[in-house]
Amino acid sequence: MSLLVTGSIGIDCVETPHGKRDDVIGGSAIYFSYAASFFTPVRLVGVVGEDCPSKLLQVFQNRDVDTSGLEIRKGSKTFRWHGSYLKDLNEAVTEKVDLNVLAERAPKIPQGFLDTKHVFLANTHPALQQEILASLKSPKLVVADTMNLWIQTEQAELRKLLGKIDGLVLNDGEARLLTGEKNLVAAAKAVRKLGPKFVVIKKGEHGCLLSSERGEFVLPAFPAEKVIDPTGAGDSFAGGMMGYLSTQGSFSVATLKRALAFGTVVASYTIADFSLAGLQSATRDHIDDRWNDFKQAMSF
Amino acid sequence: MSLLVTGSIGIDCVETPHGKRDDVIGGSAIYFSYAASFFTPVRLVGVVGEDCPSKLLQVFQNRDVDTSGLEIRKGSKTFRWHGSYLKDLNEAVTEKVDLNVLAERAPKIPQGFLDTKHVFLANTHPALQQEILASLKSPKLVVADTMNLWIQTEQAELRKLLGKIDGLVLNDGEARLLTGEKNLVAAAKAVRKLGPKFVVIKKGEHGCLLSSERGEFVLPAFPAEKVIDPTGAGDSFAGGMMGYLSTQGSFSVATLKRALAFGTVVASYTIADFSLAGLQSATRDHIDDRWNDFKQAMSF
Repeated sequence: MSLLVTGSIGIDCVETPHGKRDDVIGGSAIYFSYAASFFTPVRLVGVVGEDCPSKLLQVFQNRDVDTSGLEIRKGSKTFRWHGSYLKDLNEAVTEKVDLNVLAERAPKIPQGFLDTKHVFLANTHPALQQEILASLKSPKLVVADTMNLWIQTEQAELRKLLGKIDGLVLNDGEARLLTGEKNLVAAAKAVRKLGPKFVVIKKGEHGCLLSSERGEFVLPAFPAEKVIDPTGAGDSFAGGMMGYLSTQGSFSVATLKRALAFGTVVASYTIADFSLAGLQSATRDHIDDRWNDFKQAMSF
Repeated sequence: MSLLVTGSIGIDCVETPHGKRDDVIGGSAIYFSYAASFFTPVRLVGVVGEDCPSKLLQVFQNRDVDTSGLEIRKGSKTFRWHGSYLKDLNEAVTEKVDLNVLAERAPKIPQGFLDTKHVFLANTHPALQQEILASLKSPKLVVADTMNLWIQTEQAELRKLLGKIDGLVLNDGEARLLTGEKNLVAAAKAVRKLGPKFVVIKKGEHGCLLSSERGEFVLPAFPAEKVIDPTGAGDSFAGGMMGYLSTQGSFSVATLKRALAFGTVVASYTIADFSLAGLQSATRDHIDDRWNDFKQAMSF
């Protein structure tokens, strides 16, 4: 079953203790789409400016990603992000960010995408997330991400969105900020009271927490001895999770747990190299093998 | 099979967002012994001053803890620790510490304890840990803990100790300090190169990491919505782990994993109340039930 994602597409400059990369492809929708396409066909909705080098957009060649919803907008500039992990590999310091085309109107969803059943609303303005959601005919599973900025400046719109989605994926700091709860179990429960049936809190190197009416489930990250570039790990996690969920008939807790483990494994490839190179080195067989190793390792 | 522990016994004053307790029983050997005694008979070796109220030492009444190695030293004062978790429930701020009797000579090990097969050298001067170890006849499993202070001031002695033990339990900050490795998987491997066959890194609310020649295993903490007082969580974890190991014939990775899960569950009782009250509210049946829930929750 197909999966639609809408989110950012950007040109990144990234610095980590292992080196520096200039003008590489990045953005939540890019990592998400690549990660999800290991599992299911992906429909990408996003926008770049006319300055975006076409070779950067060729990352989905030979991937099951439908880019007919990717708009190259004339007269606009592509979103740019310059981040550094020199201080702490677990948290990016944004050196510079230019929203550019992301500050303009949302990209249009192609007619052929309107029947999509599984939707991931990657981080963007919650009013836009609602607008995109409203245009879809009958989605079966809607999951969103958000960020500090919207929690601080657009909480009314964000709360409206939370009433309309099945699941929310966000990081630990965002969950604390949104709910005022320091304890993550309490924070996840407080988020569920705002609408979503399930909440996934991403804790970076410490893994993730799932909260649903069936209780809490905590999964550590895949133990990695070397993290080259953590950019996109959270989006790849969401992509692996949603990609797997889209192939399943149900969204039971058992299915969600397996999906979280797939997200964890996919993200472990992302952080092993710069930009998309880690994901590009993986195959579905690699992912399944590592997933089985992880499942085996986690049982006691 | 019996289990010997030597470590600190103290009078604590603790402040957390949930309240304050003055002059309660604490210390690594106390938490460890209580936790381990859910699984196996414990032999406690430690020393207090004559100022220690006898009611504080009655915590082991009706527990399978042999306190004949507990010395009440005339003319000495009991170790005292005053800590606060008001800023961060995951990290104590030491407001005041008086080593008192802990700065004097080590307590003597009773003759009847010298044949003990399983030993936990809770945190104390690494020269003392070696001295105690040398006096035992033929220990089968020796695991130690340590702390920043010895890593910084007595690293030569600590390295000698590491060559003589089977396992080391330490927290994430200590592992990084000892090895200079920021990444915990790399840090654990570097510790193993110094001697121990296995290393357990405690990550507080983020669980623990086991490293052995068979690879890495990461276990999250038991999801807790309310942490009342985290004091002694790490020692309780070690006590649950060693208590369970002492009942097993082997120390294989599969056994170690189950032991880590028991440690995790026992620590989840410790943090649910002040001082020993959380552990005192638990029974072995409670622990087994929660362990089974945890095992079930962790499988996917």
